[in-house]
Amino acid sequence: MSEYDSHHVQVTDSFLEPVSTFTDDGPDIIKVSARSRSTAVAGAIAGVMRQHNIAEVQAIGAGAVNQAVKALAIARGYLERDEIDIVTTPYFTEVDIDGQERTAVRFRVEPRPS
Amino acid sequence: MSEYDSHHVQVTDSFLEPVSTFTDDGPDIIKVSARSRSTAVAGAIAGVMRQHNIAEVQAIGAGAVNQAVKALAIARGYLERDEIDIVTTPYFTEVDIDGQERTAVRFRVEPRPS
Repeated sequence: MSEYDSHHVQVTDSFLEPVSTFTDDGPDIIKVSARSRSTAVAGAIAGVMRQHNIAEVQAIGAGAVNQAVKALAIARGYLERDEIDIVTTPYFTEVDIDGQERTAVRFRVEPRPS
Repeated sequence: MSEYDSHHVQVTDSFLEPVSTFTDDGPDIIKVSARSRSTAVAGAIAGVMRQHNIAEVQAIGAGAVNQAVKALAIARGYLERDEIDIVTTPYFTEVDIDGQERTAVRFRVEPRPS
Protein backbone atom coordinates (compact mmCIF):
# COMPACT_ATOMS: atom_id res chain seq x y z
CA MET A 1 0.00 0.00 0.00
CA SER A 2 1.55 3.27 -1.06
CA GLU A 3 1.75 6.30 1.15
CA TYR A 4 -0.87 7.97 -1.01
CA ASP A 5 -3.34 5.09 -0.67
CA SER A 6 -3.31 5.48 3.09
CA HIS A 7 -4.83 8.93 2.61
CA HIS A 8 -7.36 7.88 0.01
CA VAL A 9 -10.72 7.38 1.67
CA GLN A 10 -13.15 5.34 -0.38
CA VAL A 11 -16.74 6.28 0.40
CA THR A 12 -17.89 2.85 -0.58
CA ASP A 13 -21.59 3.64 -0.20
CA SER A 14 -21.47 5.75 -3.33
CA PHE A 15 -20.48 2.71 -5.38
CA LEU A 16 -23.73 0.97 -4.43
CA GLU A 17 -25.79 3.56 -6.25
CA PRO A 18 -25.95 4.26 -9.97
CA VAL A 19 -23.85 7.28 -10.84
CA SER A 20 -26.07 9.04 -13.30
CA THR A 21 -26.52 12.45 -11.72
CA PHE A 22 -24.50 14.89 -9.63
CA THR A 23 -27.24 15.17 -7.05
CA ASP A 24 -26.21 12.28 -4.83
CA ASP A 25 -23.37 12.51 -2.34
CA GLY A 26 -20.96 11.91 -5.20
CA PRO A 27 -17.81 9.85 -5.38
CA ASP A 28 -15.16 9.48 -2.73
CA ILE A 29 -13.12 12.48 -1.64
CA ILE A 30 -9.47 12.24 -2.67
CA LYS A 31 -7.49 13.25 0.41
CA VAL A 32 -4.05 14.68 -0.25
CA SER A 33 -1.23 15.15 2.24
CA ALA A 34 2.00 17.10 1.89
CA ARG A 35 3.74 13.77 1.32
CA SER A 36 1.35 12.51 -1.36
CA ARG A 37 2.98 11.95 -4.74
CA SER A 38 1.34 14.38 -7.14
CA THR A 39 1.41 11.85 -10.00
CA ALA A 40 -0.41 9.27 -7.83
CA VAL A 41 -3.01 11.86 -6.84
CA ALA A 42 -3.32 12.87 -10.50
CA GLY A 43 -4.00 9.24 -11.40
CA ALA A 44 -6.71 9.07 -8.74
CA ILE A 45 -8.30 12.30 -10.00
CA ALA A 46 -8.25 11.04 -13.60
CA GLY A 47 -9.77 7.71 -12.55
CA VAL A 48 -12.58 9.32 -10.55
CA MET A 49 -13.29 11.79 -13.38
CA ARG A 50 -13.52 8.97 -15.92
CA GLN A 51 -15.89 7.03 -13.69
CA HIS A 52 -17.99 9.75 -12.05
CA ASN A 53 -17.44 12.87 -14.18
CA ILE A 54 -16.89 14.81 -10.96
CA ALA A 55 -14.27 14.62 -8.21
CA GLU A 56 -13.52 16.22 -4.87
CA VAL A 57 -9.94 16.72 -3.66
CA GLN A 58 -9.19 17.74 -0.09
CA ALA A 59 -5.97 19.23 1.29
CA ILE A 60 -5.03 20.66 4.69
CA GLY A 61 -1.97 22.89 4.91
CA ALA A 62 0.26 24.59 2.34
CA GLY A 63 2.25 21.48 1.41
CA ALA A 64 -0.89 19.44 0.81
CA VAL A 65 -2.57 22.23 -1.17
CA ASN A 66 0.54 22.47 -3.36
CA GLN A 67 0.53 18.73 -4.04
CA ALA A 68 -3.18 18.86 -4.85
CA VAL A 69 -2.73 21.71 -7.32
CA LYS A 70 0.22 19.99 -9.00
CA ALA A 71 -1.90 16.82 -9.22
CA LEU A 72 -4.74 18.77 -10.86
CA ALA A 73 -2.35 20.18 -13.47
CA ILE A 74 -0.92 16.69 -14.14
CA ALA A 75 -4.40 15.12 -14.29
CA ARG A 76 -5.30 17.45 -17.15
CA GLY A 77 -2.60 15.74 -19.18
CA TYR A 78 -3.80 12.26 -18.19
CA LEU A 79 -7.35 13.13 -19.25
CA GLU A 80 -6.39 14.60 -22.61
CA ARG A 81 -6.53 11.15 -24.21
CA ASP A 82 -10.09 10.83 -22.90
CA GLU A 83 -10.93 14.24 -24.36
CA ILE A 84 -11.91 15.46 -20.90
CA ASP A 85 -10.70 18.92 -19.94
CA ILE A 86 -11.18 19.77 -16.29
CA VAL A 87 -11.78 22.92 -14.31
CA THR A 88 -11.75 23.24 -10.55
CA THR A 89 -13.44 25.34 -7.89
CA PRO A 90 -11.53 25.73 -4.61
CA TYR A 91 -13.51 26.33 -1.44
CA PHE A 92 -12.99 26.12 2.30
CA THR A 93 -14.57 23.51 4.50
CA GLU A 94 -14.23 22.72 8.19
CA VAL A 95 -13.18 19.16 8.97
CA ASP A 96 -12.71 17.26 12.18
CA ILE A 97 -9.22 15.75 12.51
CA ASP A 98 -8.82 13.74 15.70
CA GLY A 99 -11.39 15.92 17.48
CA GLN A 100 -9.82 19.17 16.28
CA GLU A 101 -11.57 21.45 13.82
CA ARG A 102 -9.31 22.28 10.89
CA THR A 103 -9.92 24.36 7.79
CA ALA A 104 -9.42 22.27 4.69
CA VAL A 105 -9.29 23.37 1.09
CA ARG A 106 -11.55 21.36 -1.17
CA PHE A 107 -11.29 21.37 -4.94
CA ARG A 108 -14.42 20.47 -6.81
CA VAL A 109 -13.28 19.07 -10.16
CA GLU A 110 -15.62 19.10 -13.14
CA PRO A 111 -15.36 18.72 -16.88
CA ARG A 112 -15.03 22.02 -18.69
CA PRO A 113 -18.46 22.62 -20.21
CA SER A 114 -18.12 22.58 -23.99
CA MET B 1 2.60 50.30 -1.35
CA SER B 2 1.62 47.05 0.26
CA GLU B 3 3.77 43.99 0.14
CA TYR B 4 1.30 42.43 -2.26
CA ASP B 5 1.45 45.36 -4.69
CA SER B 6 5.18 44.85 -5.09
CA HIS B 7 4.44 41.47 -6.65
CA HIS B 8 1.62 42.67 -8.85
CA VAL B 9 2.95 43.21 -12.35
CA GLN B 10 0.77 45.37 -14.54
CA VAL B 11 1.19 44.39 -18.17
CA THR B 12 0.25 47.88 -19.27
CA ASP B 13 0.27 47.04 -22.98
CA SER B 14 -2.93 45.08 -22.61
CA PHE B 15 -4.72 48.22 -21.43
CA LEU B 16 -4.03 49.92 -24.76
CA GLU B 17 -6.24 47.46 -26.59
CA PRO B 18 -9.97 46.94 -26.29
CA VAL B 19 -10.75 43.93 -24.14
CA SER B 20 -13.50 42.35 -26.12
CA THR B 21 -12.14 38.88 -26.80
CA PHE B 22 -9.96 36.33 -25.02
CA THR B 23 -7.65 36.04 -28.02
CA ASP B 24 -5.30 38.89 -27.14
CA ASP B 25 -2.60 38.62 -24.53
CA GLY B 26 -5.24 39.24 -21.88
CA PRO B 27 -5.03 41.21 -18.66
CA ASP B 28 -2.09 41.44 -16.30
CA ILE B 29 -0.88 38.34 -14.50
CA ILE B 30 -1.50 38.47 -10.74
CA LYS B 31 1.75 37.31 -9.15
CA VAL B 32 1.44 35.80 -5.70
CA SER B 33 4.20 35.17 -3.19
CA ALA B 34 4.16 33.13 0.00
CA ARG B 35 3.91 36.41 1.90
CA SER B 36 1.01 37.82 -0.13
CA ARG B 37 -2.14 38.45 1.87
CA SER B 38 -4.79 36.13 0.45
CA THR B 39 -7.55 38.75 0.89
CA ALA B 40 -5.50 41.32 -1.09
CA VAL B 41 -4.89 38.79 -3.85
CA ALA B 42 -8.60 37.89 -3.77
CA GLY B 43 -9.45 41.57 -4.25
CA ALA B 44 -7.12 41.74 -7.24
CA ILE B 45 -8.64 38.59 -8.76
CA ALA B 46 -12.16 39.96 -8.27
CA GLY B 47 -11.18 43.30 -9.81
CA VAL B 48 -9.57 41.72 -12.88
CA MET B 49 -12.53 39.36 -13.32
CA ARG B 50 -15.00 42.26 -13.20
CA GLN B 51 -12.98 44.20 -15.77
CA HIS B 52 -11.67 41.49 -18.10
CA ASN B 53 -13.83 38.43 -17.39
CA ILE B 54 -10.64 36.36 -17.26
CA ALA B 55 -7.60 36.42 -14.96
CA GLU B 56 -4.26 34.68 -14.63
CA VAL B 57 -2.68 34.05 -11.23
CA GLN B 58 0.93 32.89 -10.92
CA ALA B 59 2.61 31.27 -7.91
CA ILE B 60 6.04 29.71 -7.41
CA GLY B 61 6.52 27.39 -4.46
CA ALA B 62 4.17 25.70 -2.01
CA GLY B 63 3.58 28.76 0.16
CA ALA B 64 2.69 30.92 -2.81
CA VAL B 65 0.44 28.24 -4.34
CA ASN B 66 -1.38 27.96 -1.01
CA GLN B 67 -1.95 31.73 -0.83
CA ALA B 68 -3.17 31.73 -4.44
CA VAL B 69 -5.67 28.93 -3.78
CA LYS B 70 -6.95 30.63 -0.62
CA ALA B 71 -7.30 33.85 -2.61
CA LEU B 72 -9.30 32.04 -5.30
CA ALA B 73 -11.67 30.64 -2.67
CA ILE B 74 -12.07 34.09 -1.08
CA ALA B 75 -12.53 35.78 -4.48
CA ARG B 76 -15.57 33.56 -5.11
CA GLY B 77 -17.22 35.25 -2.15
CA TYR B 78 -16.27 38.72 -3.36
CA LEU B 79 -17.74 37.99 -6.80
CA GLU B 80 -21.02 36.60 -5.50
CA ARG B 81 -22.52 40.10 -5.36
CA ASP B 82 -21.62 40.47 -9.05
CA GLU B 83 -23.27 37.14 -9.79
CA ILE B 84 -19.98 35.84 -11.20
CA ASP B 85 -18.99 32.33 -10.20
CA ILE B 86 -15.45 31.39 -11.13
CA VAL B 87 -13.66 28.20 -12.03
CA THR B 88 -9.93 27.78 -12.44
CA THR B 89 -7.54 25.67 -14.47
CA PRO B 90 -4.10 25.12 -12.96
CA TYR B 91 -1.18 24.50 -15.32
CA PHE B 92 2.59 24.60 -15.20
CA THR B 93 4.68 27.18 -16.95
CA GLU B 94 8.41 27.85 -17.00
CA VAL B 95 9.41 31.34 -15.96
CA ASP B 96 12.74 33.13 -15.80
CA ILE B 97 13.50 34.49 -12.33
CA ASP B 98 16.79 36.40 -12.22
CA GLY B 99 18.22 34.25 -15.02
CA GLN B 100 17.08 30.96 -13.43
CA GLU B 101 14.36 28.83 -14.95
CA ARG B 102 11.66 28.04 -12.40
CA THR B 103 8.44 26.07 -12.72
CA ALA B 104 5.49 28.26 -11.83
CA VAL B 105 1.90 27.25 -11.31
CA ARG B 106 -0.55 29.38 -13.25
CA PHE B 107 -4.25 29.47 -12.55
CA ARG B 108 -6.43 30.53 -15.43
CA VAL B 109 -9.59 31.97 -13.88
CA GLU B 110 -12.80 32.11 -15.87
CA PRO B 111 -16.48 32.59 -15.17
CA ARG B 112 -18.34 29.34 -14.73
CA PRO B 113 -20.24 28.88 -17.96
CA SER B 114 -23.96 28.99 -17.23
